[in-house]
Amino acid sequence: VVGALCSEGAGWAGAHARSSLRREFPSRQAVAGLVDDLRAVLFPGFFGPSELTAETLRFHVGAALDRILHVLQEQILRGFRVVGEAEAGESAKDRSWRVARAFVERLPEVKKALGADVEAAYAGDPALVNPEEAIYCYPGILAITSQRLAHELWLLGVPLLPRMITEHAHSSTGIDIHPGARIGEGFFIDHGTGVVIGETAVIGRGVRIYQGVTLGAKSFPLDADGNPIKGVDRHPIVEDDVVIYANATVLGRVTIGRGATIGGNVWVTRDVAPGSMVAKS
Amino acid sequence: VVGALCSEGAGWAGAHARSSLRREFPSRQAVAGLVDDLRAVLFPGFFGPSELTAETLRFHVGAALDRILHVLQEQILRGFRVVGEAEAGESAKDRSWRVARAFVERLPEVKKALGADVEAAYAGDPALVNPEEAIYCYPGILAITSQRLAHELWLLGVPLLPRMITEHAHSSTGIDIHPGARIGEGFFIDHGTGVVIGETAVIGRGVRIYQGVTLGAKSFPLDADGNPIKGVDRHPIVEDDVVIYANATVLGRVTIGRGATIGGNVWVTRDVAPGSMVAKS
Amino acid sequence: VVGALCSEGAGWAGAHARSSLRREFPSRQAVAGLVDDLRAVLFPGFFGPSELTAETLRFHVGAALDRILHVLQEQILRGFRVVGEAEAGESAKDRSWRVARAFVERLPEVKKALGADVEAAYAGDPALVNPEEAIYCYPGILAITSQRLAHELWLLGVPLLPRMITEHAHSSTGIDIHPGARIGEGFFIDHGTGVVIGETAVIGRGVRIYQGVTLGAKSFPLDADGNPIKGVDRHPIVEDDVVIYANATVLGRVTIGRGATIGGNVWVTRDVAPGSMVAKS
Amino acid sequence: VVGALCSEGAGWAGAHARSSLRREFPSRQAVAGLVDDLRAVLFPGFFGPSELTAETLRFHVGAALDRILHVLQEQILRGFRVVGEAEAGESAKDRSWRVARAFVERLPEVKKALGADVEAAYAGDPALVNPEEAIYCYPGILAITSQRLAHELWLLGVPLLPRMITEHAHSSTGIDIHPGARIGEGFFIDHGTGVVIGETAVIGRGVRIYQGVTLGAKSFPLDADGNPIKGVDRHPIVEDDVVIYANATVLGRVTIGRGATIGGNVWVTRDVAPGSMVAKS
Amino acid sequence: VVGALCSEGAGWAGAHARSSLRREFPSRQAVAGLVDDLRAVLFPGFFGPSELTAETLRFHVGAALDRILHVLQEQILRGFRVVGEAEAGESAKDRSWRVARAFVERLPEVKKALGADVEAAYAGDPALVNPEEAIYCYPGILAITSQRLAHELWLLGVPLLPRMITEHAHSSTGIDIHPGARIGEGFFIDHGTGVVIGETAVIGRGVRIYQGVTLGAKSFPLDADGNPIKGVDRHPIVEDDVVIYANATVLGRVTIGRGATIGGNVWVTRDVAPGSMVAKS
Amino acid sequence: VVGALCSEGAGWAGAHARSSLRREFPSRQAVAGLVDDLRAVLFPGFFGPSELTAETLRFHVGAALDRILHVLQEQILRGFRVVGEAEAGESAKDRSWRVARAFVERLPEVKKALGADVEAAYAGDPALVNPEEAIYCYPGILAITSQRLAHELWLLGVPLLPRMITEHAHSSTGIDIHPGARIGEGFFIDHGTGVVIGETAVIGRGVRIYQGVTLGAKSFPLDADGNPIKGVDRHPIVEDDVVIYANATVLGRVTIGRGATIGGNVWVTRDVAPGSMVAKS
Repeated sequence: VVGALCSEGAGWAGAHARSSLRREFPSRQAVAGLVDDLRAVLFPGFFGPSELTAETLRFHVGAALDRILHVLQEQILRGFRVVGEAEAGESAKDRSWRVARAFVERLPEVKKALGADVEAAYAGDPALVNPEEAIYCYPGILAITSQRLAHELWLLGVPLLPRMITEHAHSSTGIDIHPGARIGEGFFIDHGTGVVIGETAVIGRGVRIYQGVTLGAKSFPLDADGNPIKGVDRHPIVEDDVVIYANATVLGRVTIGRGATIGGNVWVTRDVAPGSMVAKS
Repeated sequence: VVGALCSEGAGWAGAHARSSLRREFPSRQAVAGLVDDLRAVLFPGFFGPSELTAETLRFHVGAALDRILHVLQEQILRGFRVVGEAEAGESAKDRSWRVARAFVERLPEVKKALGADVEAAYAGDPALVNPEEAIYCYPGILAITSQRLAHELWLLGVPLLPRMITEHAHSSTGIDIHPGARIGEGFFIDHGTGVVIGETAVIGRGVRIYQGVTLGAKSFPLDADGNPIKGVDRHPIVEDDVVIYANATVLGRVTIGRGATIGGNVWVTRDVAPGSMVAKS
Repeated sequence: VVGALCSEGAGWAGAHARSSLRREFPSRQAVAGLVDDLRAVLFPGFFGPSELTAETLRFHVGAALDRILHVLQEQILRGFRVVGEAEAGESAKDRSWRVARAFVERLPEVKKALGADVEAAYAGDPALVNPEEAIYCYPGILAITSQRLAHELWLLGVPLLPRMITEHAHSSTGIDIHPGARIGEGFFIDHGTGVVIGETAVIGRGVRIYQGVTLGAKSFPLDADGNPIKGVDRHPIVEDDVVIYANATVLGRVTIGRGATIGGNVWVTRDVAPGSMVAKS
Repeated sequence: VVGALCSEGAGWAGAHARSSLRREFPSRQAVAGLVDDLRAVLFPGFFGPSELTAETLRFHVGAALDRILHVLQEQILRGFRVVGEAEAGESAKDRSWRVARAFVERLPEVKKALGADVEAAYAGDPALVNPEEAIYCYPGILAITSQRLAHELWLLGVPLLPRMITEHAHSSTGIDIHPGARIGEGFFIDHGTGVVIGETAVIGRGVRIYQGVTLGAKSFPLDADGNPIKGVDRHPIVEDDVVIYANATVLGRVTIGRGATIGGNVWVTRDVAPGSMVAKS
Repeated sequence: VVGALCSEGAGWAGAHARSSLRREFPSRQAVAGLVDDLRAVLFPGFFGPSELTAETLRFHVGAALDRILHVLQEQILRGFRVVGEAEAGESAKDRSWRVARAFVERLPEVKKALGADVEAAYAGDPALVNPEEAIYCYPGILAITSQRLAHELWLLGVPLLPRMITEHAHSSTGIDIHPGARIGEGFFIDHGTGVVIGETAVIGRGVRIYQGVTLGAKSFPLDADGNPIKGVDRHPIVEDDVVIYANATVLGRVTIGRGATIGGNVWVTRDVAPGSMVAKS
Repeated sequence: VVGALCSEGAGWAGAHARSSLRREFPSRQAVAGLVDDLRAVLFPGFFGPSELTAETLRFHVGAALDRILHVLQEQILRGFRVVGEAEAGESAKDRSWRVARAFVERLPEVKKALGADVEAAYAGDPALVNPEEAIYCYPGILAITSQRLAHELWLLGVPLLPRMITEHAHSSTGIDIHPGARIGEGFFIDHGTGVVIGETAVIGRGVRIYQGVTLGAKSFPLDADGNPIKGVDRHPIVEDDVVIYANATVLGRVTIGRGATIGGNVWVTRDVAPGSMVAKS
């Protein structure tokens, strides 16, 4: 059996498998710890050390950022090496440092967007009696936090890590948002299990969606060899202040106009006019 | 960046964020351990120590209850403090003790309801060859166990913990039942991913539902300031012996009459008569 | 309360509860470790030790298989004992060894099928830029890996473990495939949350399905006592090269013919002709 | 290198090494957990769960004893198997159960002796301001607790475990007392690092010794083959109320008479009369 | 057995045992973590986060000190409660805060003394090729670090914690220094196993001692009831620049004069003149 | 306080402290895991996976050696970097690989010596009834295993790691053997607490020593600046078949001749003739 499995090893996935034999993948555990540290920086007092004061907050945020920077750089470097990014001399290492620093500089912007997300949750859920519950317990907040962080890494061209971060959130929330999706502030997902938002989706400000909503692709073009062409815009554009109720499906590069409402279980493959309502007949 | 993040800290969520800087949240890890201990008490021999005898069972249940009581009191107290419940002198502490004891006294009732739930699973799933599999492996049993426990805490006015318990179950099962929902004995959820049951839902005895079913709100009234009014009855009433098949959606304060059957993918926003069947046309 | 809970213990689930008091269940932690070891054997370099060479690969695979064999035998034995399989003398132990060895001998076949699954993922998802991402991050690959392993144990008549393995995957991916389902090579599930595939489903080669798809039973016959009859074929047959889009539901022992396409949110309870397309009207 | 190490494996320790390849040793971690549980039973409130009441104490002690009984039986059984004790049919298992039960029945006696040991510590150390410190922090108390437990197992003929328990204490205290030594109540070791007490030593009541004291063998007889003859009485007898100061060495089957005092660094190889004092000249 | 152990519980150590049933002891694990954090603050770059810069050092030290302050306060409070210190109203809590703050303010002084200790190690051990080895590996440095920290708590009147800290070091180094001992800068212990330094010992600057050295009490006065009188000066005074070689024993309130040398295995119970050498004849 | 501690940071240990701010030390945890893996390779069946067969042994040993090689190389590299070994380009990395491989090739020799050590333990201790106990429980075997491994690294010029390995053993056994000591086969240390063996000691075959024995330096020459001169031979030479009883002290570059016996507590600073016996008068 050992022989069979080892000789198989050379065969089944060809060059990809062989190259992977020589490289170390980013560590799932390190990435999970990174996200925990980032949440402590973005929501101090809710995650990480408790009983902070204005005076001690600076120390904890500074120490966490330094830790984040080092862990992130190491994991980014692993990512570059696994996918075989050209690395003339030390440049893969240099690039990982540059990217990690650029990411950290984006954190205040991420924090601002998340602040609006939390307010949207409080405004959008009558079951929410105290706002702490949203930050501390809501899967929608957890998922959008991870996606906003992963999106910054995705914009910086980091391989593997963005997807690891969103899949980590997907695993614990059932919400699957691709790191490539561009999402405006004040975004709220209620319940969330089964939500899928695709790579090229564009979402405006103040959008609210419910469990089971898909913002997906209708089909995708193949190249001459029958392989899918990567990177084509194929997911919906959702403008500001749209609400999409549970289990609705929106497919293809359609536009849901500003302030429109999509009812539950509705199937949408065409543009929807601003302010209109689409419901199950 | 440290400066930006720290000054942001004061701004983004106003008073809520500031108050959270001084308080310690209930611990996720403690709550997870609590649920494990409770499952060992409710299903002895399945969870917790194995190879029990009638003689030693008493010791293990007694020791676990004492542990539960202390951990629960501590976490309830943290909950009261985070949400700023009035606590004149030591009264927050006294109240946490009183509530923890009241919860423990409810456990025999919870156990009785869960016994009926397990029997309903065995009666309702042809794939289930041995009943141990249901208790030990079924996400539906795990989710209803957590909800019944969370519901008791919710009735006792405990903040944060009930939601933490149901979200813990949500995360591992994809089943999202609000702690406020009132659910009768003999309840069975098969597969379960994507199930959402809202805060004011009322479910009778012997009800069976499948994956992706939503018992949700249709819309919710806003107050003069545009904020949702909390606590209004807005979710369905499901009477005894109803079956709701996969991905059906029932919205609003409608009543599904005793013994009715709701077919898969069906969309219901009106009352359904007892004994009737609603199916996709 | 202790008294109430302990006397309840004797009553609520009758003989099943009592028998469980004397037996040790398979360990969830051991089973999770087993799956990790199996993934390291099936995808060397992706999981388990990194930086392998052809020379050292043999050692790692051999050592992991030996570990797998011992842990598996122990857990299988526990399974046999919990469900009270006849065990004249040492025969339960002998049987667990025989079964564990037979399982290990099936691994090269499982690996071959998984290789085709990975290639199907790469061919079927335009968002996938590097193939490592599929093996390392995709919940669909994780779920089918666990199901293929659980299916081999299910074929060998092992109780409890197959379901524990698929529920472990269900919990982290939201994909619920029964261990009994027979699934051909080159199977790809994208996103996956909410997918349910029933016990007697039969799936051909090269099938692709999306999140929220149910391959379920329409209803099930009861015996004279009102209990469901176990083991009846009641789930769909899906032939080679079928694609089923998000949230579609296929119920009953229907056949989806070779190369057919089922659109999103579609509801199917009848046979679908080969090559045809069923879409929402 | 692999070849060299594996072929060496067959050679270096002959039959012993080969037999060990087929057997599972008692687990160090299980034994450490066992000692923790036993300390919680013997010193409730100091180790194990805190905030006990008379009411809940019974539950915790009962549950801990049941856990101890099962873990101990399993580890004893491993011990019997490693050293190849004759095990006709199931008798090794039966014997391990009988021995584990006999051990648990000895615990009240052990507790009584330890109570006197703690009182001796309080009476014998002027640096001890509060008695809790002795139970909670003193290495001497830890070492004698482990030895008294190991001694009971040693009397019952259990292999390996007694030595594992005393070596566990030796490792954290530097006090090395053989499980075979017979030690009276009210025994106090201050500081303790470097203390060695041999297998056949006999110590009366109310004895106090300090760091670096050796109660050892002078020499040991060899059999015809030049191997040491096992089990000969070759260590000192120390009668009641003796005090032995730091780094004193007492060798051979000599008797230190009741109430005698041995000064620091003294070297003793002859009997010492009751009530006398031996000091460095 | 349960009955016997529980009724024993009331008897054996009287009031002390009973009071301990109601109180929570300081946590060994918390204290070990505290010492780790303190070592990271005192020896940045050697313990705790690596790759510090002058810029990030401030953040890490600040964050660690805040963590230390909170953990320490909680553990000190537990200590006060266990030993039943008078606590009118909230004063035990207030006192624990005041003491924890006072301790933190002493850390720069402790660091200064430890700096001199490290230099003494480098100057005093020819086997030490690089100075990092001393800080990172030497048990003598570990033991004196713990004692200097424990001594500050002891001066502040904290119960239990000081001894827990020195016993933690004793357990891993075999070096037993009482928290009460007053020790000057530049102190070096080589090898160290078996070293015992008593509560009222006073040690000057630049002292060097080797393994097995005892600075102990000769005897101690009893009060009218036969109990030892606490707090009497009964251990040696060792002046600046003294060297004491391996296994030497110095007993009683004697003075070893400045610059004296005590040879190995020597037994000293009288004053030794400055600059003299005492060696084995 | 933060300011004081950070500015102190620049001052107290000068250049050494500053350089340490930029470097990562070898990980204690990694080194402890390395020693565990090495013990599983050297004593298969006693440590590491149990129930090995001749067939599976090769796999486990091979896999463990590969793991050892990678961990060791990484930790050696850290060691080189901390002490600032010249590292022109990638040469520190290359050197760490070369050294790690050379170490692994020495393991069969180490195993051979350890085999003789175990036999010496069995021959030398009448309390040892079954030989498994020596390998599995004896601190003397643990200490000599660690020292023989550390010695190989020391011969290869690896910084820090050798000392970390022997101090790890020192901490759990109280036996302190410098990595530089050269020790022949068949070496047995009984009890062992307090044993100290210095850097330049040379020990022949079949030597047996007891607790508290010191093989130390008498004094050491200083250079013109008053610093000790490193690397001078200053510890004893102990020839074959010597026995040294408890607490004996041998100091300086003296020779204990073949077959000599040194009694307990004896003080030796001169050569001892072969075959002679030195005892306390």
